[in-house]
Amino acid sequence: MNETSDFCYLRSAENPFGAILPKKQAHISPDDRGFYFADGVYEVMRTYSGQLFRPRDHLNRFKNSLAAVKIELTDINAIPEICTQLLKRNQLQGEEVFFYIQATRGVWQRNLPFPPPDVIPTLYISVTPIVQPETERTQGIACITMPDIRWQRCDIKSIGLLPSVLARQAATEAGAAEAIFVRNGVLTEGTHTNLFGVKKGVILTHPLNNHILPGVTRTVVLELCQLLNLPVSETPIQQKDLNEMDEIFVTSTTWEVVPVISINAIPVANGKPGAITRVLQKAFQDYVARTIK
Amino acid sequence: MNETSDFCYLRSAENPFGAILPKKQAHISPDDRGFYFADGVYEVMRTYSGQLFRPRDHLNRFKNSLAAVKIELTDINAIPEICTQLLKRNQLQGEEVFFYIQATRGVWQRNLPFPPPDVIPTLYISVTPIVQPETERTQGIACITMPDIRWQRCDIKSIGLLPSVLARQAATEAGAAEAIFVRNGVLTEGTHTNLFGVKKGVILTHPLNNHILPGVTRTVVLELCQLLNLPVSETPIQQKDLNEMDEIFVTSTTWEVVPVISINAIPVANGKPGAITRVLQKAFQDYVARTIK
Repeated sequence: MNETSDFCYLRSAENPFGAILPKKQAHISPDDRGFYFADGVYEVMRTYSGQLFRPRDHLNRFKNSLAAVKIELTDINAIPEICTQLLKRNQLQGEEVFFYIQATRGVWQRNLPFPPPDVIPTLYISVTPIVQPETERTQGIACITMPDIRWQRCDIKSIGLLPSVLARQAATEAGAAEAIFVRNGVLTEGTHTNLFGVKKGVILTHPLNNHILPGVTRTVVLELCQLLNLPVSETPIQQKDLNEMDEIFVTSTTWEVVPVISINAIPVANGKPGAITRVLQKAFQDYVARTIK
Repeated sequence: MNETSDFCYLRSAENPFGAILPKKQAHISPDDRGFYFADGVYEVMRTYSGQLFRPRDHLNRFKNSLAAVKIELTDINAIPEICTQLLKRNQLQGEEVFFYIQATRGVWQRNLPFPPPDVIPTLYISVTPIVQPETERTQGIACITMPDIRWQRCDIKSIGLLPSVLARQAATEAGAAEAIFVRNGVLTEGTHTNLFGVKKGVILTHPLNNHILPGVTRTVVLELCQLLNLPVSETPIQQKDLNEMDEIFVTSTTWEVVPVISINAIPVANGKPGAITRVLQKAFQDYVARTIK
Protein backbone atom coordinates (compact mmCIF):
# COMPACT_ATOMS: atom_id res chain seq x y z
CA MET A 1 0.00 0.00 0.00
CA ASN A 2 1.05 3.58 -0.55
CA GLU A 3 2.63 5.08 2.55
CA THR A 4 2.27 8.78 3.23
CA SER A 5 5.43 10.75 3.91
CA ASP A 6 6.37 12.24 7.26
CA PHE A 7 5.90 15.95 6.62
CA CYS A 8 2.50 17.41 5.87
CA TYR A 9 0.98 20.88 5.63
CA LEU A 10 -1.70 22.03 8.02
CA ARG A 11 -3.49 25.35 8.34
CA SER A 12 -6.13 25.32 11.05
CA ALA A 13 -7.56 27.39 13.90
CA GLU A 14 -4.51 26.39 15.94
CA ASN A 15 -2.03 27.22 13.11
CA PRO A 16 -3.80 30.07 11.32
CA PHE A 17 -0.81 30.86 9.08
CA GLY A 18 -0.22 27.25 8.13
CA ALA A 19 2.98 25.26 8.44
CA ILE A 20 4.78 22.22 7.15
CA LEU A 21 5.22 19.92 10.12
CA PRO A 22 5.75 16.26 11.02
CA LYS A 23 2.43 14.43 10.69
CA LYS A 24 2.59 13.34 14.33
CA GLN A 25 2.46 17.01 15.29
CA ALA A 26 -0.48 17.75 12.97
CA HIS A 27 -3.45 17.97 15.32
CA ILE A 28 -7.01 18.17 14.14
CA SER A 29 -9.49 19.45 16.71
CA PRO A 30 -12.46 17.21 17.56
CA ASP A 31 -14.42 20.41 16.85
CA ASP A 32 -13.25 20.43 13.23
CA ARG A 33 -16.32 20.29 11.01
CA GLY A 34 -14.45 17.78 8.86
CA PHE A 35 -14.29 15.38 11.80
CA TYR A 36 -17.90 15.57 13.00
CA PHE A 37 -19.90 16.57 9.86
CA ALA A 38 -17.76 15.58 6.84
CA ASP A 39 -18.16 19.28 6.10
CA GLY A 40 -15.33 19.43 3.61
CA VAL A 41 -14.02 18.51 0.17
CA TYR A 42 -10.77 17.12 -1.14
CA GLU A 43 -8.62 16.73 -4.21
CA VAL A 44 -5.90 14.33 -5.29
CA MET A 45 -3.23 15.65 -7.63
CA ARG A 46 -0.21 13.71 -8.85
CA THR A 47 3.24 14.30 -10.27
CA TYR A 48 5.24 12.65 -13.02
CA SER A 49 9.00 13.10 -12.58
CA GLY A 50 8.31 15.69 -9.91
CA GLN A 51 6.00 17.82 -12.08
CA LEU A 52 2.31 18.32 -11.30
CA PHE A 53 0.05 16.67 -13.87
CA ARG A 54 -2.82 18.83 -15.19
CA PRO A 55 -2.68 21.04 -12.09
CA ARG A 56 -5.16 23.54 -13.56
CA ASP A 57 -7.79 20.80 -14.05
CA HIS A 58 -7.33 19.58 -10.49
CA LEU A 59 -7.36 23.05 -8.94
CA ASN A 60 -10.42 24.00 -11.00
CA ARG A 61 -12.23 20.89 -9.83
CA PHE A 62 -11.22 21.69 -6.24
CA LYS A 63 -12.58 25.22 -6.73
CA ASN A 64 -15.83 23.77 -8.06
CA SER A 65 -16.16 21.43 -5.07
CA LEU A 66 -15.45 24.28 -2.65
CA ALA A 67 -17.96 26.57 -4.40
CA ALA A 68 -20.64 23.86 -4.41
CA VAL A 69 -20.43 23.54 -0.62
CA LYS A 70 -19.70 27.26 -0.11
CA ILE A 71 -16.31 26.95 1.60
CA GLU A 72 -14.22 30.04 0.89
CA LEU A 73 -10.58 29.05 0.59
CA THR A 74 -8.81 32.29 -0.22
CA ASP A 75 -5.36 30.72 -0.54
CA ILE A 76 -6.19 28.02 -3.08
CA ASN A 77 -3.63 29.42 -5.53
CA ALA A 78 -0.87 28.85 -2.97
CA ILE A 79 -1.41 25.08 -3.14
CA PRO A 80 1.09 24.32 -5.95
CA GLU A 81 3.83 26.15 -4.01
CA ILE A 82 2.93 24.26 -0.81
CA CYS A 83 3.17 21.04 -2.84
CA THR A 84 6.63 22.01 -4.07
CA GLN A 85 7.74 22.74 -0.51
CA LEU A 86 6.34 19.40 0.67
CA LEU A 87 8.36 17.59 -2.02
CA LYS A 88 11.53 19.34 -0.82
CA ARG A 89 10.89 18.78 2.86
CA ASN A 90 10.19 15.07 2.28
CA GLN A 91 13.15 14.77 -0.15
CA LEU A 92 10.84 13.54 -2.90
CA GLN A 93 11.83 15.91 -5.72
CA GLY A 94 11.62 14.13 -9.05
CA GLU A 95 9.54 11.27 -7.60
CA GLU A 96 6.09 10.16 -8.67
CA VAL A 97 3.84 11.12 -5.78
CA PHE A 98 0.29 12.18 -5.17
CA PHE A 99 -0.84 15.06 -3.02
CA TYR A 100 -3.94 14.65 -0.89
CA ILE A 101 -5.54 18.05 -0.33
CA GLN A 102 -8.47 18.46 2.06
CA ALA A 103 -10.32 21.59 3.11
CA THR A 104 -13.00 21.74 5.80
CA ARG A 105 -15.23 24.52 7.06
CA GLY A 106 -12.98 24.91 10.10
CA VAL A 107 -13.25 24.58 13.86
CA TRP A 108 -16.41 25.61 15.65
CA GLN A 109 -19.05 24.42 18.13
CA ARG A 110 -20.99 21.54 16.55
CA ASN A 111 -24.07 23.15 15.00
CA LEU A 112 -25.40 22.43 11.50
CA PRO A 113 -25.55 25.96 10.01
CA PHE A 114 -22.29 27.52 8.83
CA PRO A 115 -20.03 29.04 11.50
CA PRO A 116 -19.36 32.82 11.52
CA PRO A 117 -17.47 34.07 8.45
CA ASP A 118 -14.27 34.71 10.42
CA VAL A 119 -13.80 30.99 11.12
CA ILE A 120 -10.83 29.91 8.99
CA PRO A 121 -11.23 26.79 6.81
CA THR A 122 -8.84 23.98 7.71
CA LEU A 123 -6.42 23.07 4.91
CA TYR A 124 -4.49 19.82 5.11
CA ILE A 125 -2.06 18.52 2.46
CA SER A 126 -0.05 15.32 2.54
CA VAL A 127 2.23 13.69 0.00
CA THR A 128 2.52 9.98 -0.78
CA PRO A 129 4.98 8.24 -3.13
CA ILE A 130 3.03 6.23 -5.72
CA VAL A 131 3.48 2.47 -5.78
CA GLN A 132 3.00 1.78 -9.50
CA PRO A 133 -0.09 -0.39 -10.10
CA GLU A 134 1.78 -2.55 -12.63
CA THR A 135 -0.15 -5.78 -12.00
CA GLU A 136 -3.47 -3.97 -12.31
CA ARG A 137 -2.40 -2.28 -15.55
CA THR A 138 -0.95 -5.33 -17.25
CA GLN A 139 -3.27 -8.09 -16.05
CA GLY A 140 -6.45 -6.10 -15.37
CA ILE A 141 -8.66 -6.24 -12.30
CA ALA A 142 -11.77 -7.99 -11.04
CA CYS A 143 -14.70 -5.75 -10.02
CA ILE A 144 -18.02 -6.21 -8.32
CA THR A 145 -21.16 -4.10 -8.65
CA MET A 146 -22.81 -2.47 -5.65
CA PRO A 147 -26.06 -0.48 -5.38
CA ASP A 148 -25.25 3.23 -5.64
CA ILE A 149 -26.65 4.37 -2.29
CA ARG A 150 -24.60 7.57 -2.32
CA TRP A 151 -26.05 11.07 -2.22
CA GLN A 152 -27.24 12.99 -5.27
CA ARG A 153 -24.13 15.19 -5.61
CA CYS A 154 -21.38 12.74 -6.52
CA ASP A 155 -19.97 15.47 -8.77
CA ILE A 156 -18.69 17.15 -5.57
CA LYS A 157 -15.47 15.57 -4.28
CA SER A 158 -16.81 15.48 -0.73
CA ILE A 159 -15.01 13.74 2.14
CA GLY A 160 -18.27 11.96 3.05
CA LEU A 161 -17.08 8.63 1.63
CA LEU A 162 -18.65 6.06 3.95
CA PRO A 163 -20.73 4.46 1.15
CA SER A 164 -17.55 4.09 -0.90
CA VAL A 165 -15.72 2.62 2.10
CA LEU A 166 -18.45 -0.02 2.52
CA ALA A 167 -18.59 -0.80 -1.21
CA ARG A 168 -14.83 -1.09 -1.50
CA GLN A 169 -14.64 -3.33 1.55
CA ALA A 170 -17.27 -5.59 -0.06
CA ALA A 171 -15.05 -5.70 -3.17
CA THR A 172 -12.00 -6.58 -1.08
CA GLU A 173 -13.91 -9.37 0.66
CA ALA A 174 -14.97 -10.69 -2.77
CA GLY A 175 -11.34 -10.67 -3.96
CA ALA A 176 -12.01 -7.74 -6.29
CA ALA A 177 -10.01 -4.53 -6.66
CA GLU A 178 -12.87 -2.13 -7.24
CA ALA A 179 -16.63 -1.79 -6.74
CA ILE A 180 -18.71 -0.24 -9.52
CA PHE A 181 -21.86 1.58 -8.41
CA VAL A 182 -25.19 0.84 -10.12
CA ARG A 183 -28.01 3.39 -9.93
CA ASN A 184 -31.34 2.90 -11.70
CA GLY A 185 -29.91 0.02 -13.69
CA VAL A 186 -26.87 1.87 -15.05
CA LEU A 187 -23.20 1.67 -14.05
CA THR A 188 -22.21 5.12 -12.80
CA GLU A 189 -18.56 4.91 -11.65
CA GLY A 190 -16.22 3.08 -9.28
CA THR A 191 -15.41 4.01 -5.68
CA HIS A 192 -12.31 5.87 -6.86
CA THR A 193 -12.44 5.48 -10.63
CA ASN A 194 -14.50 6.47 -13.66
CA LEU A 195 -15.82 3.64 -15.80
CA PHE A 196 -15.58 3.08 -19.56
CA GLY A 197 -16.84 0.33 -21.84
CA VAL A 198 -16.22 -0.59 -25.46
CA LYS A 199 -19.03 -2.07 -27.57
CA LYS A 200 -18.63 -2.67 -31.31
CA GLY A 201 -15.77 -0.20 -31.46
CA VAL A 202 -17.58 2.62 -29.64
CA ILE A 203 -16.23 3.83 -26.30
CA LEU A 204 -19.00 4.37 -23.76
CA THR A 205 -18.86 6.30 -20.50
CA HIS A 206 -21.41 7.85 -18.16
CA PRO A 207 -22.15 11.50 -19.07
CA LEU A 208 -21.10 14.21 -16.65
CA ASN A 209 -23.95 14.90 -14.24
CA ASN A 210 -24.65 14.82 -10.50
CA HIS A 211 -24.10 11.04 -10.32
CA ILE A 212 -20.39 10.91 -11.19
CA LEU A 213 -17.19 12.76 -10.43
CA PRO A 214 -15.72 14.66 -13.39
CA GLY A 215 -12.46 12.72 -13.40
CA VAL A 216 -9.37 14.46 -14.77
CA THR A 217 -8.10 11.15 -16.20
CA ARG A 218 -11.59 10.67 -17.73
CA THR A 219 -11.14 14.03 -19.49
CA VAL A 220 -7.65 13.12 -20.75
CA VAL A 221 -8.90 9.75 -22.04
CA LEU A 222 -11.74 11.46 -23.92
CA GLU A 223 -9.22 13.93 -25.42
CA LEU A 224 -7.03 11.00 -26.49
CA CYS A 225 -10.02 9.24 -28.09
CA GLN A 226 -10.58 12.35 -30.17
CA LEU A 227 -6.90 12.53 -31.17
CA LEU A 228 -6.98 8.84 -32.13
CA ASN A 229 -10.32 9.13 -33.95
CA LEU A 230 -11.92 6.58 -31.65
CA PRO A 231 -15.71 7.01 -31.55
CA VAL A 232 -17.08 7.96 -28.13
CA SER A 233 -20.60 8.04 -26.79
CA GLU A 234 -21.21 9.57 -23.35
CA THR A 235 -23.96 7.06 -22.65
CA PRO A 236 -24.09 5.04 -19.46
CA ILE A 237 -23.57 1.28 -19.56
CA GLN A 238 -26.73 -0.61 -18.58
CA GLN A 239 -26.15 -3.44 -16.14
CA LYS A 240 -28.31 -5.73 -18.32
CA ASP A 241 -25.97 -5.09 -21.28
CA LEU A 242 -22.76 -6.06 -19.45
CA ASN A 243 -22.55 -9.40 -21.23
CA GLU A 244 -22.50 -7.55 -24.58
CA MET A 245 -19.47 -5.40 -23.73
CA ASP A 246 -16.26 -6.09 -25.65
CA GLU A 247 -14.07 -4.26 -23.14
CA ILE A 248 -14.37 -2.47 -19.80
CA PHE A 249 -11.79 -0.27 -18.15
CA VAL A 250 -11.54 2.21 -15.30
CA THR A 251 -9.51 5.39 -14.98
CA SER A 252 -8.08 7.33 -12.05
CA THR A 253 -5.30 9.77 -11.29
CA THR A 254 -3.02 7.17 -9.70
CA TRP A 255 -4.14 4.15 -11.78
CA GLU A 256 -4.38 5.92 -15.18
CA VAL A 257 -6.11 3.30 -17.41
CA VAL A 258 -6.74 -0.13 -15.88
CA PRO A 259 -8.53 -3.00 -17.71
CA VAL A 260 -11.48 -4.69 -16.01
CA ILE A 261 -11.40 -8.41 -16.79
CA SER A 262 -14.37 -9.58 -14.72
CA ILE A 263 -17.45 -8.12 -13.04
CA ASN A 264 -19.16 -10.12 -10.30
CA ALA A 265 -16.87 -13.03 -11.21
CA ILE A 266 -18.22 -13.09 -14.80
CA PRO A 267 -15.47 -12.49 -17.39
CA VAL A 268 -15.71 -9.36 -19.53
CA ALA A 269 -15.69 -10.74 -23.12
CA ASN A 270 -12.80 -13.25 -23.18
CA GLY A 271 -11.60 -12.19 -19.70
CA LYS A 272 -8.45 -10.50 -21.00
CA PRO A 273 -7.52 -6.80 -21.27
CA GLY A 274 -9.04 -5.44 -24.49
CA ALA A 275 -7.25 -4.08 -27.55
CA ILE A 276 -8.70 -0.55 -27.33
CA THR A 277 -7.89 -0.46 -23.61
CA ARG A 278 -4.28 -1.28 -24.52
CA VAL A 279 -4.23 1.47 -27.16
CA LEU A 280 -5.49 4.00 -24.61
CA GLN A 281 -3.01 2.88 -21.93
CA LYS A 282 -0.18 3.43 -24.41
CA ALA A 283 -1.65 6.74 -25.65
CA PHE A 284 -1.96 7.94 -22.06
CA GLN A 285 1.68 7.18 -21.30
CA ASP A 286 2.79 8.82 -24.54
CA TYR A 287 0.73 11.87 -23.61
CA VAL A 288 2.42 12.01 -20.19
CA ALA A 289 5.84 11.73 -21.83
CA ARG A 290 4.97 14.60 -24.22
CA THR A 291 3.53 16.80 -21.45
CA ILE A 292 6.18 16.33 -18.79
CA LYS A 293 9.51 17.72 -19.84
CA MET B 1 -25.98 28.54 21.10
CA ASN B 2 -25.05 25.57 23.24
CA GLU B 3 -21.43 25.69 24.32
CA THR B 4 -19.54 22.47 24.89
CA SER B 5 -17.75 22.05 28.22
CA ASP B 6 -14.00 22.01 28.67
CA PHE B 7 -13.33 18.37 29.47
CA CYS B 8 -14.00 15.65 26.93
CA TYR B 9 -13.21 11.96 26.59
CA LEU B 10 -10.95 10.66 23.84
CA ARG B 11 -9.75 7.16 23.06
CA SER B 12 -7.63 7.01 19.92
CA ALA B 13 -4.46 5.50 18.48
CA GLU B 14 -2.49 8.08 20.49
CA ASN B 15 -4.46 7.41 23.74
CA PRO B 16 -5.35 3.72 23.39
CA PHE B 17 -6.70 3.43 26.93
CA GLY B 18 -8.82 6.56 26.69
CA ALA B 19 -8.76 9.57 28.98
CA ILE B 20 -10.78 12.56 30.10
CA LEU B 21 -8.80 15.61 29.08
CA PRO B 22 -9.18 19.31 28.30
CA LYS B 23 -10.60 19.64 24.79
CA LYS B 24 -7.60 21.72 23.70
CA GLN B 25 -5.44 18.68 24.41
CA ALA B 26 -7.74 16.33 22.50
CA HIS B 27 -5.92 15.74 19.23
CA ILE B 28 -7.44 13.95 16.28
CA SER B 29 -4.96 12.68 13.72
CA PRO B 30 -5.39 13.87 10.11
CA ASP B 31 -5.17 10.11 9.41
CA ASP B 32 -8.34 9.47 11.41
CA ARG B 33 -10.89 7.86 9.09
CA GLY B 34 -13.51 10.13 10.63
CA PHE B 35 -11.62 13.18 9.34
CA TYR B 36 -10.95 12.06 5.76
CA PHE B 37 -13.79 9.57 4.99
CA ALA B 38 -16.63 10.34 7.46
CA ASP B 39 -16.04 6.69 8.34
CA GLY B 40 -17.89 6.83 11.63
CA VAL B 41 -21.20 7.14 13.44
CA TYR B 42 -22.46 9.16 16.37
CA GLU B 43 -25.13 9.37 19.02
CA VAL B 44 -26.59 12.18 21.12
CA MET B 45 -27.90 11.28 24.57
CA ARG B 46 -29.28 13.73 27.11
CA THR B 47 -29.90 14.03 30.83
CA TYR B 48 -32.74 15.43 32.88
CA SER B 49 -31.64 16.49 36.36
CA GLY B 50 -28.35 14.70 35.82
CA GLN B 51 -29.93 11.35 34.83
CA LEU B 52 -29.54 9.83 31.38
CA PHE B 53 -32.84 9.75 29.46
CA ARG B 54 -33.70 6.43 27.76
CA PRO B 55 -30.01 5.41 27.72
CA ARG B 56 -30.83 1.88 26.54
CA ASP B 57 -32.63 3.22 23.45
CA HIS B 58 -29.72 5.51 22.62
CA LEU B 59 -27.06 2.86 23.19
CA ASN B 60 -29.04 0.33 21.16
CA ARG B 61 -29.34 2.77 18.31
CA PHE B 62 -25.60 3.46 18.55
CA LYS B 63 -24.96 -0.30 18.44
CA ASN B 64 -27.19 -0.56 15.35
CA SER B 65 -25.32 2.27 13.63
CA LEU B 66 -21.96 0.68 14.48
CA ALA B 67 -23.12 -2.74 13.26
CA ALA B 68 -24.49 -1.29 10.02
CA VAL B 69 -21.08 0.16 9.16
CA LYS B 70 -19.16 -2.74 10.77
CA ILE B 71 -17.22 -0.76 13.37
CA GLU B 72 -16.47 -2.98 16.36
CA LEU B 73 -16.59 -0.89 19.52
CA THR B 74 -15.93 -3.38 22.29
CA ASP B 75 -16.29 -0.85 25.12
CA ILE B 76 -19.71 0.54 24.22
CA ASN B 77 -21.13 -0.48 27.60
CA ALA B 78 -18.57 1.74 29.35
CA ILE B 79 -20.15 4.84 27.80
CA PRO B 80 -22.66 5.61 30.62
CA GLU B 81 -19.83 5.51 33.18
CA ILE B 82 -17.68 7.79 31.00
CA CYS B 83 -20.66 10.17 30.81
CA THR B 84 -20.96 10.18 34.60
CA GLN B 85 -17.24 10.93 34.93
CA LEU B 86 -17.55 13.75 32.37
CA LEU B 87 -20.38 15.31 34.39
CA LYS B 88 -18.19 15.23 37.53
CA ARG B 89 -15.09 16.54 35.83
CA ASN B 90 -17.05 19.41 34.27
CA GLN B 91 -18.97 20.04 37.54
CA LEU B 92 -22.27 19.53 35.74
CA GLN B 93 -23.90 16.96 38.04
CA GLY B 94 -27.64 17.51 38.19
CA GLU B 95 -27.63 19.73 35.08
CA GLU B 96 -29.48 19.19 31.85
CA VAL B 97 -26.80 18.36 29.31
CA PHE B 98 -26.35 16.33 26.18
CA PHE B 99 -23.52 13.99 25.42
CA TYR B 100 -22.14 13.85 21.91
CA ILE B 101 -20.64 10.41 21.26
CA GLN B 102 -18.70 9.70 18.07
CA ALA B 103 -16.88 6.55 17.00
CA THR B 104 -14.73 6.26 13.88
CA ARG B 105 -12.89 3.35 12.30
CA GLY B 106 -9.62 4.68 13.73
CA VAL B 107 -6.30 5.96 12.42
CA TRP B 108 -4.73 4.43 9.34
CA GLN B 109 -3.24 5.25 5.94
CA ARG B 110 -5.99 6.67 3.73
CA ASN B 111 -7.28 3.71 1.73
CA LEU B 112 -10.97 2.86 1.18
CA PRO B 113 -11.10 -0.75 2.44
CA PHE B 114 -11.19 -1.32 6.20
CA PRO B 115 -7.85 -1.09 8.05
CA PRO B 116 -6.40 -4.21 9.75
CA PRO B 117 -8.55 -5.53 12.62
CA ASP B 118 -6.05 -4.41 15.28
CA VAL B 119 -6.64 -0.73 14.46
CA ILE B 120 -8.57 0.68 17.45
CA PRO B 121 -11.74 2.69 16.71
CA THR B 122 -11.57 6.29 17.88
CA LEU B 123 -14.14 7.16 20.56
CA TYR B 124 -14.84 10.80 21.37
CA ILE B 125 -17.40 12.05 23.90
CA SER B 126 -18.17 15.63 24.82
CA VAL B 127 -20.77 17.16 27.11
CA THR B 128 -22.77 20.34 26.50
CA PRO B 129 -25.22 22.09 28.86
CA ILE B 130 -28.59 22.43 27.15
CA VAL B 131 -29.91 25.91 26.47
CA GLN B 132 -33.65 25.29 26.78
CA PRO B 133 -35.43 25.93 23.45
CA GLU B 134 -38.24 27.81 25.19
CA THR B 135 -39.10 30.15 22.34
CA GLU B 136 -39.21 27.28 19.87
CA ARG B 137 -41.45 25.23 22.15
CA THR B 138 -43.89 27.96 23.04
CA GLN B 139 -44.10 29.95 19.79
CA GLY B 140 -43.21 27.25 17.26
CA ILE B 141 -40.77 27.48 14.40
CA ALA B 142 -40.65 28.27 10.72
CA CYS B 143 -39.34 25.54 8.41
CA ILE B 144 -38.39 25.26 4.77
CA THR B 145 -38.42 22.16 2.56
CA MET B 146 -35.31 20.99 0.75
CA PRO B 147 -34.80 18.15 -1.75
CA ASP B 148 -33.62 15.06 0.13
CA ILE B 149 -30.32 14.51 -1.68
CA ARG B 150 -28.90 12.38 1.14
CA TRP B 151 -27.77 8.78 0.80
CA GLN B 152 -30.09 5.77 1.02
CA ARG B 153 -29.18 4.82 4.60
CA CYS B 154 -30.50 7.73 6.66
CA ASP B 155 -31.40 5.15 9.33
CA ILE B 156 -27.67 5.04 10.17
CA LYS B 157 -26.59 7.97 12.36
CA SER B 158 -23.53 8.59 10.21
CA ILE B 159 -21.23 11.59 10.66
CA GLY B 160 -21.49 12.28 6.90
CA LEU B 161 -23.80 15.25 7.41
CA LEU B 162 -22.79 17.66 4.63
CA PRO B 163 -26.25 17.52 2.94
CA SER B 164 -27.82 18.40 6.31
CA VAL B 165 -25.32 21.23 6.81
CA LEU B 166 -26.25 22.72 3.42
CA ALA B 167 -30.00 22.29 4.01
CA ARG B 168 -29.83 23.80 7.48
CA GLN B 169 -27.79 26.74 6.24
CA ALA B 170 -30.45 27.35 3.57
CA ALA B 171 -33.04 27.35 6.38
CA THR B 172 -30.99 29.83 8.41
CA GLU B 173 -30.65 32.12 5.40
CA ALA B 174 -34.43 31.92 4.91
CA GLY B 175 -35.00 32.86 8.57
CA ALA B 176 -36.22 29.34 9.37
CA ALA B 177 -35.13 27.09 12.24
CA GLU B 178 -35.22 23.76 10.43
CA ALA B 179 -35.17 22.28 6.93
CA ILE B 180 -37.49 19.36 6.15
CA PHE B 181 -36.27 16.95 3.49
CA VAL B 182 -38.57 15.91 0.63
CA ARG B 183 -37.90 12.69 -1.29
CA ASN B 184 -40.17 11.42 -4.04
CA GLY B 185 -42.85 13.92 -3.06
CA VAL B 186 -43.01 12.99 0.63
CA LEU B 187 -41.62 14.76 3.70
CA THR B 188 -39.11 12.40 5.30
CA GLU B 189 -37.61 14.22 8.31
CA GLY B 190 -35.73 17.35 9.35
CA THR B 191 -31.96 17.85 9.46
CA HIS B 192 -31.95 16.96 13.17
CA THR B 193 -35.60 16.17 13.88
CA ASN B 194 -38.34 13.68 13.02
CA LEU B 195 -41.50 15.13 11.52
CA PHE B 196 -45.13 14.63 12.53
CA GLY B 197 -48.40 15.99 11.16
CA VAL B 198 -52.00 15.99 12.39
CA LYS B 199 -54.86 15.69 9.90
CA LYS B 200 -58.47 15.28 11.02
CA GLY B 201 -57.32 14.08 14.44
CA VAL B 202 -54.90 11.44 13.11
CA ILE B 203 -51.19 11.80 13.84
CA LEU B 204 -49.05 11.06 10.81
CA THR B 205 -45.32 10.34 10.68
CA HIS B 206 -42.99 8.71 8.17
CA PRO B 207 -42.64 4.96 8.77
CA LEU B 208 -39.28 3.61 9.91
CA ASN B 209 -37.23 2.67 6.88
CA ASN B 210 -33.91 3.56 5.27
CA HIS B 211 -35.00 7.17 4.63
CA ILE B 212 -35.30 8.36 8.24
CA LEU B 213 -33.50 8.08 11.55
CA PRO B 214 -35.36 6.06 14.19
CA GLY B 215 -35.58 8.94 16.66
CA VAL B 216 -35.79 8.10 20.35
CA THR B 217 -38.11 11.07 20.92
CA ARG B 218 -40.19 9.82 17.95
CA THR B 219 -40.56 6.49 19.78
CA VAL B 220 -41.54 8.19 23.05
CA VAL B 221 -44.11 10.37 21.26
CA LEU B 222 -45.64 7.29 19.60
CA GLU B 223 -45.79 5.57 23.02
CA LEU B 224 -47.52 8.64 24.47
CA CYS B 225 -50.04 8.68 21.60
CA GLN B 226 -50.92 5.11 22.50
CA LEU B 227 -51.27 5.98 26.21
CA LEU B 228 -53.48 8.95 25.31
CA ASN B 229 -55.53 6.97 22.77
CA LEU B 230 -54.54 9.36 19.98
CA PRO B 231 -54.84 7.65 16.59
CA VAL B 232 -51.54 7.30 14.72
CA SER B 233 -50.75 6.36 11.15
CA GLU B 234 -47.14 5.77 10.17
CA THR B 235 -47.77 7.22 6.73
CA PRO B 236 -45.55 9.89 5.23
CA ILE B 237 -46.91 13.38 4.64
CA GLN B 238 -47.14 14.21 0.94
CA GLN B 239 -45.80 17.64 0.03
CA LYS B 240 -48.93 18.28 -2.06
CA ASP B 241 -51.10 17.70 1.04
CA LEU B 242 -49.28 20.24 3.23
CA ASN B 243 -52.09 22.77 2.92
CA GLU B 244 -54.53 20.19 4.36
CA MET B 245 -52.56 19.59 7.57
CA ASP B 246 -54.11 20.82 10.81
CA GLU B 247 -50.83 20.68 12.73
CA ILE B 248 -47.16 19.94 12.12
CA PHE B 249 -44.49 19.37 14.73
CA VAL B 250 -40.94 18.07 14.94
CA THR B 251 -39.23 16.05 17.66
CA SER B 252 -35.63 15.67 18.79
CA THR B 253 -33.67 14.71 21.87
CA THR B 254 -32.80 18.28 22.82
CA TRP B 255 -35.95 19.97 21.45
CA GLU B 256 -38.49 17.34 22.59
CA VAL B 257 -41.74 18.43 20.80
CA VAL B 258 -41.61 21.69 18.84
CA PRO B 259 -44.57 23.08 16.83
CA VAL B 260 -44.03 24.03 13.18
CA ILE B 261 -46.06 27.13 12.38
CA SER B 262 -44.99 27.70 8.79
CA ILE B 263 -43.37 25.80 5.95
CA ASN B 264 -41.79 27.73 3.09
CA ALA B 265 -43.35 30.89 4.59
CA ILE B 266 -46.86 29.42 4.23
CA PRO B 267 -48.64 29.14 7.61
CA VAL B 268 -49.56 25.66 8.84
CA ALA B 269 -53.35 25.86 9.37
CA ASN B 270 -53.87 29.12 11.33
CA GLY B 271 -50.12 29.60 11.86
CA LYS B 272 -50.27 28.83 15.59
CA PRO B 273 -49.08 25.80 17.58
CA GLY B 274 -51.80 23.13 17.38
CA ALA B 275 -53.88 21.67 20.21
CA ILE B 276 -52.63 18.08 19.82
CA THR B 277 -49.05 19.35 19.65
CA ARG B 278 -49.65 21.09 22.99
CA VAL B 279 -51.12 17.91 24.48
CA LEU B 280 -48.05 15.95 23.41
CA GLN B 281 -45.62 18.60 24.69
CA LYS B 282 -47.30 18.40 28.12
CA ALA B 283 -47.49 14.60 28.00
CA PHE B 284 -43.79 14.44 27.15
CA GLN B 285 -42.83 16.63 30.10
CA ASP B 286 -45.08 14.62 32.43
CA TYR B 287 -43.44 11.46 31.16
CA VAL B 288 -39.99 12.91 31.89
CA ALA B 289 -41.12 13.92 35.40
CA ARG B 290 -42.42 10.35 36.01
CA THR B 291 -39.29 8.69 34.61
CA ILE B 292 -36.61 10.83 36.27
CA LYS B 293 -36.62 10.45 40.06
